[in-house]
Amino acid sequence: MLPDDLIRKVEFLKEIEKLKLVNRANKTLGGKRFENSAEHSWHIALMAIVLRDYYDGELDLLRVVKMLLIHDLVEIDAGDTWLYASDTSSKFEAEHNGAVRLFGMLPRDHEREFLSLWREFEDRETPEAQFASSIDGIQPLLNHLVTGDPADGVLPLERVKAKKEYIKTHAPRLWSLVEELIQSSAEMGLYR
Amino acid sequence: MLPDDLIRKVEFLKEIEKLKLVNRANKTLGGKRFENSAEHSWHIALMAIVLRDYYDGELDLLRVVKMLLIHDLVEIDAGDTWLYASDTSSKFEAEHNGAVRLFGMLPRDHEREFLSLWREFEDRETPEAQFASSIDGIQPLLNHLVTGDPADGVLPLERVKAKKEYIKTHAPRLWSLVEELIQSSAEMGLYR
Repeated sequence: MLPDDLIRKVEFLKEIEKLKLVNRANKTLGGKRFENSAEHSWHIALMAIVLRDYYDGELDLLRVVKMLLIHDLVEIDAGDTWLYASDTSSKFEAEHNGAVRLFGMLPRDHEREFLSLWREFEDRETPEAQFASSIDGIQPLLNHLVTGDPADGVLPLERVKAKKEYIKTHAPRLWSLVEELIQSSAEMGLYR
Repeated sequence: MLPDDLIRKVEFLKEIEKLKLVNRANKTLGGKRFENSAEHSWHIALMAIVLRDYYDGELDLLRVVKMLLIHDLVEIDAGDTWLYASDTSSKFEAEHNGAVRLFGMLPRDHEREFLSLWREFEDRETPEAQFASSIDGIQPLLNHLVTGDPADGVLPLERVKAKKEYIKTHAPRLWSLVEELIQSSAEMGLYR
């Protein structure tokens, strides 16, 4: 017999297999299938490690990585909401319910930690959350450039830029990278 | 103009998109496609965080997570080698060459760090590497159970157990979990 808290952890770790079936709006290389939220989460966690020294000031990098690894789990229940979707009114509630259900599968200490990290990420107030959400905003720009396929149709360049504007204040040393990535994609005809 | 070291980081972060196309031997839920090494890496990084307190003793968890996020990148060049493959003689050299090429795309400090972490993981000598590789060995057992699809054909139970034997000494508190997972899959007819 396994201890009860280990059984809970294992049930959670089985449940999250479902994130591999949550498709995002963009493709991966080859254009044959959509990127899913699990591989996206891997990519941003590693991006945060590699780009960490482009954030000035103290940062608990383990907390950043944890946030990035868990922040999309709520999509198992809520689905992925495209950044440029016109109606996002039900997004927060659906994701919050997902967080309560999923993290509630875990023993109390992890439930609390993950709920708090998820909320911290959404609020974008701490240095860790500001850096993490900036990384989360940059990865799709890299993806568009690498795959040459920016989701549904050609987005207006100004709309892309406006959506990424928060990075200018939250991770200012990465802003020139954001501009450069958007510009390169525009030159390839990926944004208009 | 972006600084030279940032350009190198970005080229690396674009290159690793390719890990999403490296298929493993097992499927994900629904059985329609193989699991890829990027989503596998996400899963084990999060598993390590959730199961950390089942490792007795000091552990630098950030180092564990870094190892797990990068250890499969070499498969971009070397491909995934199935754990139960009969000929693995060229595996280490191909993966080592992959590590040198891929991590060599990064500025020197990250190149050194990642090469060293990758080697540390392979050597399974430090507590971090022993815990990380135990987690890496447990995830496919979870996956088989969840998907009901243990890769190519039905594996002999004793062969599965022998391949996971190292976990008994490297992360002893997780050994009863390994036995339980293997037993449950055997009862479902996934191992013979």
